[in-house]
Amino acid sequence: MYPRRVAQPSIRFVLVEPRSSGNIGAAARALKNCGFDRLVLVAPACDPLDEEARRFAVDAKDVLLAAERVPSLDAALEGAATVVGTSGLAGKQRRPNWRLDAFAAGLSREAAKGPLAFVFGRESRGLTDDELDRCTHLVHLAASEAYTSFNLAQALLLCAYTTRLALGVEPQPAAHDEPAAVHEEREAMYAHLNEALRAIGFLKPEQEEGMARRLRRMFGRADFTSGDVKVLRGIARQILWIARR
Amino acid sequence: MYPRRVAQPSIRFVLVEPRSSGNIGAAARALKNCGFDRLVLVAPACDPLDEEARRFAVDAKDVLLAAERVPSLDAALEGAATVVGTSGLAGKQRRPNWRLDAFAAGLSREAAKGPLAFVFGRESRGLTDDELDRCTHLVHLAASEAYTSFNLAQALLLCAYTTRLALGVEPQPAAHDEPAAVHEEREAMYAHLNEALRAIGFLKPEQEEGMARRLRRMFGRADFTSGDVKVLRGIARQILWIARR
Repeated sequence: MYPRRVAQPSIRFVLVEPRSSGNIGAAARALKNCGFDRLVLVAPACDPLDEEARRFAVDAKDVLLAAERVPSLDAALEGAATVVGTSGLAGKQRRPNWRLDAFAAGLSREAAKGPLAFVFGRESRGLTDDELDRCTHLVHLAASEAYTSFNLAQALLLCAYTTRLALGVEPQPAAHDEPAAVHEEREAMYAHLNEALRAIGFLKPEQEEGMARRLRRMFGRADFTSGDVKVLRGIARQILWIARR
Repeated sequence: MYPRRVAQPSIRFVLVEPRSSGNIGAAARALKNCGFDRLVLVAPACDPLDEEARRFAVDAKDVLLAAERVPSLDAALEGAATVVGTSGLAGKQRRPNWRLDAFAAGLSREAAKGPLAFVFGRESRGLTDDELDRCTHLVHLAASEAYTSFNLAQALLLCAYTTRLALGVEPQPAAHDEPAAVHEEREAMYAHLNEALRAIGFLKPEQEEGMARRLRRMFGRADFTSGDVKVLRGIARQILWIARR
């Protein structure tokens, strides 16, 4: 639905020693959903192309099949100007650890520097200190303290989706196809409705003003289009026809 | 790592006829990661507590075991003031469909109105038109045109995580003094209105479905309060009384 523009900055997603092929397949799908296509696997501890991986990749088998396999994190990071390591907050790393959304606010400037890599650790125990040392930035997710550990493919999805938004996909307009009703159309509609509601005894002289105002307020919040006004006037006409039979 | 503050507004996540128990388990984990705990399953087409569900839930088995099972979407939505349906952009629904992040910008105000529900459709074919009709808002994800369909649990994660971030700020006071209308009040109102409009010949059998849907869309934009619903039902009652004289 949105252009794939965000795939143009060179951004790769690196999984270090992933153990679940289902996660690898799910990661491939999440990347393709978000307009990315470069998945790098460091010494996977499973067969990344097995049946389960394919089942989770669904229509992202192309991304899965194109995943690079390398023996070391250093090989995975070749050419990367920015290396973003994902980790919980609890590590021993005494350095800034950005919440993903705060990091993303500066992401387009970061990506303009050159190729960027996100690095994700093992399902069981994340990245080692040595691996975190190789990262130029650390980010973490805003997890609930009730359960801080995200599934690997879900953590990757949050990074990929946040990156996609930060790099500026154009939002679609949420507007209506029909033109908005203009003042005189609205006024004619209220007059017509009031006439109908008077005819059926819903608007009574003594409370008419308050109730008519309330209807204006209710309908006023709805941003009626020209077409909507015609529909309501059609109802008013029909009410009058029945009331005057 | 962050306080569970976002769990305080009443927010539920509804899965309509999910078919994969793995997705249900993964959804439970994502909810707990994001500080939520209310999962509602409408007529699940699988055993939501089987081994695969538990395996994917990992340490969120409490959320999984507490998931409510209900027979219909209406039952799942009882008491919900705001109902947010998730759908692609491509549907026939001619109404605003917000990109998730744009919707989230106003989320704390929306959540202050009363209980809020996110609704997710089937893995294979999403939500039906009837189900979308029951939603007060539609949202979609900023998917790449290369692959627009997100995995169910991943779509839910994006909604939950975005909601968690959006509610990090204190909810704004509600816009109206009156409480927002809840789902069953709205549905009863539409049923009553349709009955009245049928009685005066405004809704004709051959075009009834399209016109009834249009009225829902018009009124759906108005954020009706409980009191507003009573007013409209008063009009419906009066129309019926006159029509049946």
